Amino acid sequence: MSNRASLLSDWLAQRIDRSNGQPIYQQLHRLLQQAILTRELAAGAKVPSSRLLAAELGIGRNTVTHVYEQLALEGYMLSATGSGTFVAHSAPHEFLFDDAPPAAIASCGTASALSMRGARLIAGAGVSRRQGGAFMPGVPDVSRFPSHVWSRLHAKYWRGPLPDLLTYAPGGGHARLRDALAHYLRTSRSVRCAPEQIIVTTGIHQSIDLAARLLADPGDTIWTEDPCYWGVRSVLQVSGLDLKAIPVDAEGIAPTPADFASPPKLMLVTPSHQYPLGMVMSLARRRMLLEYARQHRCWIIEDDYDSEFRYGSRPLASLQGMDSNGQVIYVGSFGKTLFPGLRIGYVVVPEALAENFAMASAELYREGQLLQQAVLAEFIEQGHFTTHIRRMRTLYCQRRDVMLETIVRRYGDALATAGADAGLHLVLKLPKHVDDRALAIAALAEGIVVRPLSGYYAHLSDAESGLLIGYACVHDNDIAPAFDRLAQVIDRFVNPATHDL
Amino acid sequence: MSNRASLLSDWLAQRIDRSNGQPIYQQLHRLLQQAILTRELAAGAKVPSSRLLAAELGIGRNTVTHVYEQLALEGYMLSATGSGTFVAHSAPHEFLFDDAPPAAIASCGTASALSMRGARLIAGAGVSRRQGGAFMPGVPDVSRFPSHVWSRLHAKYWRGPLPDLLTYAPGGGHARLRDALAHYLRTSRSVRCAPEQIIVTTGIHQSIDLAARLLADPGDTIWTEDPCYWGVRSVLQVSGLDLKAIPVDAEGIAPTPADFASPPKLMLVTPSHQYPLGMVMSLARRRMLLEYARQHRCWIIEDDYDSEFRYGSRPLASLQGMDSNGQVIYVGSFGKTLFPGLRIGYVVVPEALAENFAMASAELYREGQLLQQAVLAEFIEQGHFTTHIRRMRTLYCQRRDVMLETIVRRYGDALATAGADAGLHLVLKLPKHVDDRALAIAALAEGIVVRPLSGYYAHLSDAESGLLIGYACVHDNDIAPAFDRLAQVIDRFVNPATHDL
Repeated sequence: MSNRASLLSDWLAQRIDRSNGQPIYQQLHRLLQQAILTRELAAGAKVPSSRLLAAELGIGRNTVTHVYEQLALEGYMLSATGSGTFVAHSAPHEFLFDDAPPAAIASCGTASALSMRGARLIAGAGVSRRQGGAFMPGVPDVSRFPSHVWSRLHAKYWRGPLPDLLTYAPGGGHARLRDALAHYLRTSRSVRCAPEQIIVTTGIHQSIDLAARLLADPGDTIWTEDPCYWGVRSVLQVSGLDLKAIPVDAEGIAPTPADFASPPKLMLVTPSHQYPLGMVMSLARRRMLLEYARQHRCWIIEDDYDSEFRYGSRPLASLQGMDSNGQVIYVGSFGKTLFPGLRIGYVVVPEALAENFAMASAELYREGQLLQQAVLAEFIEQGHFTTHIRRMRTLYCQRRDVMLETIVRRYGDALATAGADAGLHLVLKLPKHVDDRALAIAALAEGIVVRPLSGYYAHLSDAESGLLIGYACVHDNDIAPAFDRLAQVIDRFVNPATHDL
Repeated sequence: MSNRASLLSDWLAQRIDRSNGQPIYQQLHRLLQQAILTRELAAGAKVPSSRLLAAELGIGRNTVTHVYEQLALEGYMLSATGSGTFVAHSAPHEFLFDDAPPAAIASCGTASALSMRGARLIAGAGVSRRQGGAFMPGVPDVSRFPSHVWSRLHAKYWRGPLPDLLTYAPGGGHARLRDALAHYLRTSRSVRCAPEQIIVTTGIHQSIDLAARLLADPGDTIWTEDPCYWGVRSVLQVSGLDLKAIPVDAEGIAPTPADFASPPKLMLVTPSHQYPLGMVMSLARRRMLLEYARQHRCWIIEDDYDSEFRYGSRPLASLQGMDSNGQVIYVGSFGKTLFPGLRIGYVVVPEALAENFAMASAELYREGQLLQQAVLAEFIEQGHFTTHIRRMRTLYCQRRDVMLETIVRRYGDALATAGADAGLHLVLKLPKHVDDRALAIAALAEGIVVRPLSGYYAHLSDAESGLLIGYACVHDNDIAPAFDRLAQVIDRFVNPATHDL
């Protein structure tokens, strides 16, 4: 018997209480769930066979089998025929913190234990400690930000009479920024809104937190795209929503007839540039979603991700602009267009919700940062914002070209790319057998940050293998050398035989 | 039969469905709850007698009585013997938005309906549209902020190499600010912590949201002081916690033996300066709470409110500094000491939780604002922070003195004050019969902002009558004239007979 099996069965034996009336099956299920969430049982660990564990605990083997099956259904475990049962990887998190794992969550039942939702959040966290360098996806080149203009505007406001800009914000944010935003969104994104419908937030996370809490109760279902951005998944889960991952096809989110039979309360989509795969949602799909939402009274949250950075065709107008029924909540931010640390985003809501969203935002988050919002308003009004976007679009397009050329030079058409028409990253597809998480960890050891595509899927079993490669924050000249280092790691995984010899 | 009764019974009759299998009792309960949360039934409205409503709906009178009793237990309604049943006021909100009420929540069942938790949040919202002037409580005098120093530091950072300061923050915030904070909290508040235990947030709301989600699951109980700050109540409620309001006495939060019999998961206290009443928690009470928390493995969240502004005796050290067991979560912010719009706060957690809090904060809120954090760190290191606090303490103390003199000159000892030893506001106590909410609305009509004390209580039936009077943001010379205007309103309410004649 392995040492690991003994440890686990000891741990379980100490906690199973035969006198408390709760069925052993339920206790075992809960304890194993707990052990996985708190990482007592690490992702990837092999669990003892049902025969062995049953013998150790003195319980029926069927009970153990049943619990393992349940945990596999719930995504906590994976069974591989012939090789045993394993603790599932739950998120891209695994590899990113691999070099510096989070402090162990103290054992359950003591005062330092996290809540269940807290443990789940930590176990599924996707955030990285690295925020730049080759090839961190989703990070713009902040060194090109016109900081002299920004700083001058800042200084001007600090010289003026300040009191109104230094205190709490009225619900919704600075009026002048809401005006400037309404104008910008109308003209560049065909968003139909009055300034009062815009609620200034600290970014996509807060916008979605606000919408989830105001529009859905715990247990309500939200459709998310599969794959999708991990951060949003965390925010929705901790709000108690029941996430249903709907696969995407070439036209965007693609619910099946079975999905359509149970309308969700909310759906969250990225029509301009599916995150992370990069396709644009087709017009037919947009019309269908809007009609479905109208009939079934669902809310659509439109995350207009990376709509500003398109390198080929012009984007379709926003979904919000096509909505004649007031069912789309439109969210965006300045994190990618200006700089991530700015923490200014916005949510555009139907007229009937505007007042309530503004009030709830002030009540929940106690907003401020009006001076910074005034600076941004003037930055937009004076045309610096559109100038900056135009410049960065040209720059990122050049880098995208260098990136694609480098990949093609190395791999020809042996490895495909996706999502290179827009945004700050592309996806390098890998053969299905390649463990992209292990590859990403190996790349990190070589100083290269990439994110494994499989980590963006709700379930590892549905995942495609690939790498998100961010090129926006890498200087043109550094792209090829960095990719060469990455390619050596890729080759080890794609053709292991060659390298093992 | 009154017109109101007809309206309500029509509204109910249209919605009660005798064919759907749900008991009439449950339907009526849910519909009335809905009507109150969505303000179809306004706070303070009298509902039809059970006899009348039963007759109108053609249902048993017992059913209606039973539902009314249930709603009264749940705090939605109040029964006054001999005068009938009324919709309960739920929050100070009522008066603050009275001049501009929130857009009506669209009727339930349509796509524009809020979630139940959303409707509850809006119905209980305490946030005000006014953020300054006589006598807005909780707002510092931002016109005295040394903006030239701050602006100079800002400009310096914008000139430097920026990339690391403009991107996303690593979990926990800027290292230099965490260092400066650890030093400040150790020396001035006896908080025992290493910089790694400090998580920089956007303020008290976010700090408490983070702690509530990481340490408690929906349905878990949290003890809050009664009265307490409305904003925190909203944040906790929307996180699904079960709030148990524990009355305070002269020594702070005062749980009864019955309360002690059911240990909560969390408790939230303001030991330095109870909000809003202003007393300091006694040493005996602090010891008792810490011991109880140790024995029952609860977390204590210590909101070290207004600890910097004490005008008489020196404050007791923080509760966190007395905790040898790692059960206190300490929260604070720069909103009152520097300026509210800054949006920088912090939470100090036990060592075992530090890594998880930092990661969860990055995962949930996607932090940034590092440049501003760097500016604040240097502002503290160079001594500007302590200088500013010292200056403001002197200034606020003067204003407090003027405020007290003005009150005493007008009322002698006919009206008592409380909580004037510290902070930015005091409480003017009113006779029990005075409706402080109506008084506050009347004062607003005269251009004076005060908050009714009763709005800070969980239940109107337990509330004391009084006014929160903020003096910190009113110039010395303006205090007496503004108070004279307020006093005319007070006199109308305290001695209505004299004024009605």
